[in-house]
Amino acid sequence: MPSPIQIFLGRHNLDGFLFVGDSICDADMYYLTHFLAGDKFAVLAQEKTTLLVSSMELNRAGEESIANECLSTSQYQIMEKLKRCKNWEEAYCQVLVEFLQGHGIRRLGVPFRFPAGFYQLLCQDFEVSVLESPASRFREIKRQEELDAIVCTQRACERAMRQATLLIGSSEPRGELLYREGQPLTSEKVRGAIERSLLEDGCEAMDTIVASGPQAAAPHARGTGPIAANAPIVIDIFPRSKSRRYFADMTRTVLKGEAALEVKEIYEAVRLAQAEGLLAIRAGVSGKEVHSRVSSIFLDLGYPEREGSGFTHSTGHGVGLDVHEKPSLSESGEELQVNHVVTVEPGLYYPDIGGVRLEDLVVVKENGYESLTHFERKLVL
Amino acid sequence: MPSPIQIFLGRHNLDGFLFVGDSICDADMYYLTHFLAGDKFAVLAQEKTTLLVSSMELNRAGEESIANECLSTSQYQIMEKLKRCKNWEEAYCQVLVEFLQGHGIRRLGVPFRFPAGFYQLLCQDFEVSVLESPASRFREIKRQEELDAIVCTQRACERAMRQATLLIGSSEPRGELLYREGQPLTSEKVRGAIERSLLEDGCEAMDTIVASGPQAAAPHARGTGPIAANAPIVIDIFPRSKSRRYFADMTRTVLKGEAALEVKEIYEAVRLAQAEGLLAIRAGVSGKEVHSRVSSIFLDLGYPEREGSGFTHSTGHGVGLDVHEKPSLSESGEELQVNHVVTVEPGLYYPDIGGVRLEDLVVVKENGYESLTHFERKLVL
Repeated sequence: MPSPIQIFLGRHNLDGFLFVGDSICDADMYYLTHFLAGDKFAVLAQEKTTLLVSSMELNRAGEESIANECLSTSQYQIMEKLKRCKNWEEAYCQVLVEFLQGHGIRRLGVPFRFPAGFYQLLCQDFEVSVLESPASRFREIKRQEELDAIVCTQRACERAMRQATLLIGSSEPRGELLYREGQPLTSEKVRGAIERSLLEDGCEAMDTIVASGPQAAAPHARGTGPIAANAPIVIDIFPRSKSRRYFADMTRTVLKGEAALEVKEIYEAVRLAQAEGLLAIRAGVSGKEVHSRVSSIFLDLGYPEREGSGFTHSTGHGVGLDVHEKPSLSESGEELQVNHVVTVEPGLYYPDIGGVRLEDLVVVKENGYESLTHFERKLVL
Repeated sequence: MPSPIQIFLGRHNLDGFLFVGDSICDADMYYLTHFLAGDKFAVLAQEKTTLLVSSMELNRAGEESIANECLSTSQYQIMEKLKRCKNWEEAYCQVLVEFLQGHGIRRLGVPFRFPAGFYQLLCQDFEVSVLESPASRFREIKRQEELDAIVCTQRACERAMRQATLLIGSSEPRGELLYREGQPLTSEKVRGAIERSLLEDGCEAMDTIVASGPQAAAPHARGTGPIAANAPIVIDIFPRSKSRRYFADMTRTVLKGEAALEVKEIYEAVRLAQAEGLLAIRAGVSGKEVHSRVSSIFLDLGYPEREGSGFTHSTGHGVGLDVHEKPSLSESGEELQVNHVVTVEPGLYYPDIGGVRLEDLVVVKENGYESLTHFERKLVL
C-alpha cells in the first residue's frame, strides 16, 4: 500500500519533496526525521526518507533520526566545491543538485517556506513546484503517541499555572498593587515561579505571559513590573517538552482583591463564549464556523470588536510540534477532523480595563471533543 | 548622509528590501525592529523601517519595536481578502502587494531565506532580486551595546559552567561511573544544574551538551545517562539572554578520576590548537586562514582528520543574535573585522575515547583579540 507521502507525490506528479532548513525552526523537518539540529540540513521525502547532513552530524543522525538513509555533504565533496565556489550557498546547492540527481529526481516539490535562494538555483536543474508541505498536513492529525506527548506537556503546564495562582493567591492587595513578603509582586516573579516549575518538568517556555492592568490589553504583551491589585491578570503558558518537542497551551485570567462589576461581566462573557466555542467543536465542523459562533456570542452580549479593542484575535489554533499550527479557528478556518488538537481561547481587551482570556486545549472527536485541560476557571483568588 | 541600508539599496538598484517570517527564528527581523514575535509578520527596510503586523499585534509593535512605522494587515482588508481567496497565503500576499505598492516599491530585494511561495507570487507584480540579507552583514560587526549584551550572557554562561564543574568535582569515581550522594551522576543532573543557574540569570539554553565517553565523540550529541569516570566530559553551554536576545558560547572538557596518557595528550593538542587559533585572530586575517592554522597544528601533532574522527568540524563561528552566524572560521571563512565576535573551538573526537573540545569567545581587534571568556582550562577536577 502506498504511504501518504507516496500518494502526495503521485497526485502532484513529483519524484520527491525537499526540505532545507533546521529542525528547531522547521517542525516539518523534525516530524519527518526526529533529528533535532540547529544547523541547516536537508530532508528528501520519497518512498523512503533521506537525510543530508554535515559529516560532523552523520553519526548522530544515524543514531537519533528515523530517516531510512543518512548521507553527508562530504560524500558530495562539499570541501572541494567550496574552494571553487564564490560562497557557501552556491557550493551547498551544487551538493544538493548531485544529491537529488542521485535519487532520481527530475520533478521536485518544495514547501512554501523553502528558501527562495535555493529555489532559484534548483530551478536551473529541476522542474520545481512550490506546494503546501505535505508534512504540515500529516502533522495536523495526531497519532496516539503525539497525543500522549501533548498531554504530558499540558500536565507540566498546569503544575506551572498552579505555582502562579498560589503565588498570586497568597499575595495581598495594598492600594493599587499586590504585595507578598513586604515586596510588590511582579510579573517577573510569577514568571520565574512558572519557569522553575516547567524546568523541573523538562519543559521550556519562550514567552510566558503574566500581564495585568493596561498591559493585558495587548494579547501578546509579556507583562513586566508590579502586578495590579483588583485587576485582571492574564497568565498564558505555552511550554514545549524539551525531549519530546510537543507544545501545550493554556490561559487563565485571575484577580486578587475586589473585582469591579464590569470586569466580572467581561469575565462571564468570555466564559460563555468559550463554552459556546467548545460546544461547537466536532469533526466535520469548520474552524471558521466555530470562530463565527464565538464572535456572535460576543456581539449578542454587547462586546463588538472595534478599533483594536474587544475580541481582537481568532478563537484558536492547532497545537503540536509548533505552538501555532493548522487548523485555525478563525475566518480562514479549515474543517476540523478527528484527532486535531486545538485551543479554544476567546478574549476581550480594553485599554482602560486590561484583558480577559480563557484558553483550553482539546482533541477533536467524532461527536465533540475531549478536553486535555484540567484546571478550574476562577476569576477572584 | 545615507544610512547603510540606503547604500545597500542604491548599490543594488532596489526600492526596498522585504523580510517575511517570525523574529524568533529570523534574527535579521529582530535586529531591524527589536520586535519579538512568534507569528509571521513583515519588515520593509527602506530609508525608514516599516513593520506590517496583525491588528492584534499593532499596539505592541508600536510600543516595543524600533521601526519608524507600524501598520496592520487589517488596514489592507485582510479579512475581506480572506473571504475571496483560496487560502491564507494568497490573501496575505495580496496584502503584501498593496503594502509594497503603497511604499513606492517596483524593484524589491528579498533575502536568500525568503519563503519561496511568497517569492513566486511577488514576482508577478515586482522585479524581485534574491540577495544576501544586508541585515546579516550589519549584524556581524557588533556595536558596544551588543558587545555588552554578549558579555552579560557570557557571565551567566560561566556561572552555569561553574555549577557543572562543582557538581562533577564533588563526585566520586567508582568503577566506570561517577557517583554523588550514593547515586550515579548523570548528564541530566549536570544539565539540570546548568539550566537552573541560567534561569536565575534570565537566560535560556536549548541544547546544552554534557557528554562523556563514546557519546562525546559526536560533537553535537547532548549526552544522556550516567557520566563515565576517568573519561573526558564535554560541557558545551550556549545560552541566550531572554530579554536582550544575545547568545554566548563556551565549552570546557573535564574529567574526574584518572586521565589516561592518550587523553592527556589529546587535551594538550586541543589546548595548543586553540592557542594557535587565538594567536591568529586579528582584523584583516581570514577565517579560512585561522582554520587552516588550527588544522595544521593538529596535523603536525599527529592528529589528522580521518573517516569522521579527529578534528571533524570548523574552528569557530560568529555569535550574536544567532548562536551560529557569520563570520565562520572554516574552509569558507571570510575576512575578520574589528568587533566581529567569534568562537575559537578546536576539538578532537574518537569513537573509542570520546571527545575533547575547548571553546572561548573573543572580540576581533585591530591587532589581535579581546577574550570574553573568563574560565580556566583544567582537565582533571
